Amino acid sequence: MAFSGEDELVLLPLGGAGEIGMNFNAYGFGPPDARKWLVVDCGVLFGRETDTPGVDVIMPDIRFLAERREDVVAVVLTHAHEDHIGAVGYLWPQLRCPLYATPFTARLIQDKLEEAELQDRVRVNVVPLHGKLSLGPFAVEFLSITHSIPEPNALSIRTPLGVVVHTGDWKIDPDPLIGETTDENAFRKIGDAGVLAMVCDSTNALVQGHSGSEADVRKALTDLIGTLRGRVAVTSFASNVARLDTIAKAARVHGRQLALVGRSMHRIVAAAKDTGYLKDFPPILAEEEAERLPPNRVLYLITGSQGEPRAALARIARNDHPAVTLGPGDAVIFSSRIIPGNELAIFELHNQLSALGVEVLTVEDHFVHVSGHPAREELSEMYRWVRPQIAVPVHGELRHMSEHARLAKSLQVPQAVVVQNGQMLRLAPGRAALVDEVPSGRIHMDGRVMVEEGLGLARARRAMGFGGLIAVMIPLDPKGRVAAEPALLLEGIPEAIEAPVREALDGALRRYNPKHDDEETLRESVRRAVRRAAADAWGKKPVTRVTIVRV
Amino acid sequence: MAFSGEDELVLLPLGGAGEIGMNFNAYGFGPPDARKWLVVDCGVLFGRETDTPGVDVIMPDIRFLAERREDVVAVVLTHAHEDHIGAVGYLWPQLRCPLYATPFTARLIQDKLEEAELQDRVRVNVVPLHGKLSLGPFAVEFLSITHSIPEPNALSIRTPLGVVVHTGDWKIDPDPLIGETTDENAFRKIGDAGVLAMVCDSTNALVQGHSGSEADVRKALTDLIGTLRGRVAVTSFASNVARLDTIAKAARVHGRQLALVGRSMHRIVAAAKDTGYLKDFPPILAEEEAERLPPNRVLYLITGSQGEPRAALARIARNDHPAVTLGPGDAVIFSSRIIPGNELAIFELHNQLSALGVEVLTVEDHFVHVSGHPAREELSEMYRWVRPQIAVPVHGELRHMSEHARLAKSLQVPQAVVVQNGQMLRLAPGRAALVDEVPSGRIHMDGRVMVEEGLGLARARRAMGFGGLIAVMIPLDPKGRVAAEPALLLEGIPEAIEAPVREALDGALRRYNPKHDDEETLRESVRRAVRRAAADAWGKKPVTRVTIVRV
Repeated sequence: MAFSGEDELVLLPLGGAGEIGMNFNAYGFGPPDARKWLVVDCGVLFGRETDTPGVDVIMPDIRFLAERREDVVAVVLTHAHEDHIGAVGYLWPQLRCPLYATPFTARLIQDKLEEAELQDRVRVNVVPLHGKLSLGPFAVEFLSITHSIPEPNALSIRTPLGVVVHTGDWKIDPDPLIGETTDENAFRKIGDAGVLAMVCDSTNALVQGHSGSEADVRKALTDLIGTLRGRVAVTSFASNVARLDTIAKAARVHGRQLALVGRSMHRIVAAAKDTGYLKDFPPILAEEEAERLPPNRVLYLITGSQGEPRAALARIARNDHPAVTLGPGDAVIFSSRIIPGNELAIFELHNQLSALGVEVLTVEDHFVHVSGHPAREELSEMYRWVRPQIAVPVHGELRHMSEHARLAKSLQVPQAVVVQNGQMLRLAPGRAALVDEVPSGRIHMDGRVMVEEGLGLARARRAMGFGGLIAVMIPLDPKGRVAAEPALLLEGIPEAIEAPVREALDGALRRYNPKHDDEETLRESVRRAVRRAAADAWGKKPVTRVTIVRV
Repeated sequence: MAFSGEDELVLLPLGGAGEIGMNFNAYGFGPPDARKWLVVDCGVLFGRETDTPGVDVIMPDIRFLAERREDVVAVVLTHAHEDHIGAVGYLWPQLRCPLYATPFTARLIQDKLEEAELQDRVRVNVVPLHGKLSLGPFAVEFLSITHSIPEPNALSIRTPLGVVVHTGDWKIDPDPLIGETTDENAFRKIGDAGVLAMVCDSTNALVQGHSGSEADVRKALTDLIGTLRGRVAVTSFASNVARLDTIAKAARVHGRQLALVGRSMHRIVAAAKDTGYLKDFPPILAEEEAERLPPNRVLYLITGSQGEPRAALARIARNDHPAVTLGPGDAVIFSSRIIPGNELAIFELHNQLSALGVEVLTVEDHFVHVSGHPAREELSEMYRWVRPQIAVPVHGELRHMSEHARLAKSLQVPQAVVVQNGQMLRLAPGRAALVDEVPSGRIHMDGRVMVEEGLGLARARRAMGFGGLIAVMIPLDPKGRVAAEPALLLEGIPEAIEAPVREALDGALRRYNPKHDDEETLRESVRRAVRRAAADAWGKKPVTRVTIVRV
């Protein structure tokens, strides 16, 4: 805590510095004991069955800010992807501060506030594109960029100690189809005036070259759909409104009528229309109507590109959708990438569709998707425009952020600093340096209950998933004698293991002497004997619990 | 069962037709009620934490053949990859028939038989390269091909009803470095004489172009290692002996001494040397010796390219290896591909290495790996050589086999048939047709116990992994009255759920009337009440077990 009493500008990532997801960055300004905080983004990370079985959604632990919520001036949301806004409904009650976003983003946040029944307590302040805000010591300007959703924004955050460019998620696309291009001149101008730090997207820092243009995807997708004769279903990220528009236009070109399948397709199309996008979107056919058309006259736009088991496409592939069926002669186009971790679920979907005789077309063989994040050439370009003194990679795992930092250094940025969640990075005055570490971590939305990751609840379940569970309940009479045959439960353990376990239990009970041994001794000796017997017979150690009941 | 009494030639895949792994194909010849069987390959599939938590290894259910083992004339093993030989130690006791393989493969199978303590009951019959065998009605000829391991073989299986070419795993590489090239002339000659059916590798049927040459990898890897100044560790599939040789030679070129890290590296190098390969392999340094060399004088060849947590590389990345450490300035080259399903584990390894300051180099950015399986151009070439009447794709998931069949048809193969495990395909006489379906499935090696997949043991554990477990144990006195406070165990469930669950339990006990309700009624009413309370409070349904103990 150097410079006590003196103003400092700090960056505190609480999420996203170490994962692609749950983005949550806080900027602090003021003397260490009286800082004002500006939060940028409030997103979720999706749980993975391997690491966190039974957890759908993960979010940052923001207790540090919750404890100083009077000093949090606002949460600004850069764009409407779940990894940037998905935690607003869960975390706003801890902050209770104003929310700011551009119209499309605000519209989708409003949905989340309603889901969380917060709509009467807070409304999103709608900021126009290119809008400016004065939030405590922070003068914030929204800069239009390009990404894979309408209205992505970078932020210029001006403070008395310098300007930070916070890029949000972005790419460079000369023809993004919807929305503005990343404004080279605006960034150059900001760069000319001098930028202290750039806090920048690392997602594709390992990817050579350029992300490619949405307009080229339009051409290729339209051509591809033209070669198909049966029913065509295209699955894509619903939030990619330009892609939805492309698919709708391709349908029209080839004389196909459009049907939307899946809740989020309808939700996003409605939000886009409400905020002035998709003005010439064609009429949408009901699913039942679409089924009655000749196969070469219909195009389904469908959710579930990541193999989500409850999404429309997975249900169709299982022949379990109420309205839509696909079969021989039909085709499914995956106009999407594979999010790491979803490979097996997606391949299983491909297998199921193949079993139905459906042709599966993907980005492996056809130019049907481009990323919304900057590849290395785009990162380099941005650094040449903005020329910051400090590069702070965020929005990435360590391997992405490290490579991003290496790239920034190769581009002559004087300082590139890899920070991790909970580390407080002083940006000014003086050289950038880690000055503090605050409580941080992950919160699991476990069912409907928020649980700290550190408590190990998902890990405990994973242990049962691996080695099963043995539970023993021993009834003892008032004198401590075993009052009846104990109950023994083996769950997820081969039948053949039960006999040796029961034998070990009987042995431990025989060795028990109520005159000398207390309950705890009994419990522990049974636990050890039973667990060792299972391990010897099976080669795995089950979770083992022993309960004593006094009767 | 048409043609009763008449000879038929059938193919019965029991593994590998539906997955890339656990290859197990049986050829049957004779009248339906008295067939002789020839088995080709006997491999495992590796378990995946998402689908089969706690299961390391999966193998085919071969009960159909086990019941007629007197008629199984032999198991022929095409090459030494685990997905072709890994189940020999587990399944041989069900068949007890002779085993045949070429020298390198035989050497590694012998290791497995020793592990399974079967070495006194069976030895592998060693077949020379290009060897011929007469096995009941089957005249088998070994045809040298190229793959990513020494001594891969295709088989020509001649019967009175025609010749089958069983490709095994293969590719076309003009310069495979070790072993023979895929012998175009031999396949052409067989094709000229007329081939009934080709049973062929589908792994890369979705991949355009050509798999590439091992010699080109040698050049690129050697150049890449030449650019590095610190310690270099290369991780690769240990069984790719040509790759190990490449890396050893690259070490020598750049003045680095070689150390092997990880058990399987030592095992494969020993097996290769024993069978006449790696004749000029350099001396191998002990790990401790290597650590004492200057960083630019050492090269580690290391196991763990798939992120296996117990392998050497993962231990080094966790800073938990007894002898080897890596740090800033050092580099790890992943001379391997990512096997689907291992993405997250491998990326986590990359993150850990990045955290140590180690540079991570992969096939994403450098030409450091080629596949051992035929891409579409190679498949096309093979079909042009062999010109079978029937194409039977195997060694693939449904999506690979379907696409392979589509490709074969486009190459004018008269019939292409996608079969699944357990389906019996008649190859002759007459048109190929599915004529029977036999019991089949998967067996899990669950710990040290073999468990049928259909019993759902892994699925039961997965359910606990998702929703935790509630166990209730109720002591009843001789009159059926609740004799004491029941024991309640919540495992993997948030603490906040305990109170509503306990309340529901108490409610159910209050509603219980020992005069009217029997044990089963009590058990079921408690189970339902408790489970519903958890679902209402938590949003997930735990596995729920109620046991009654009479005291």
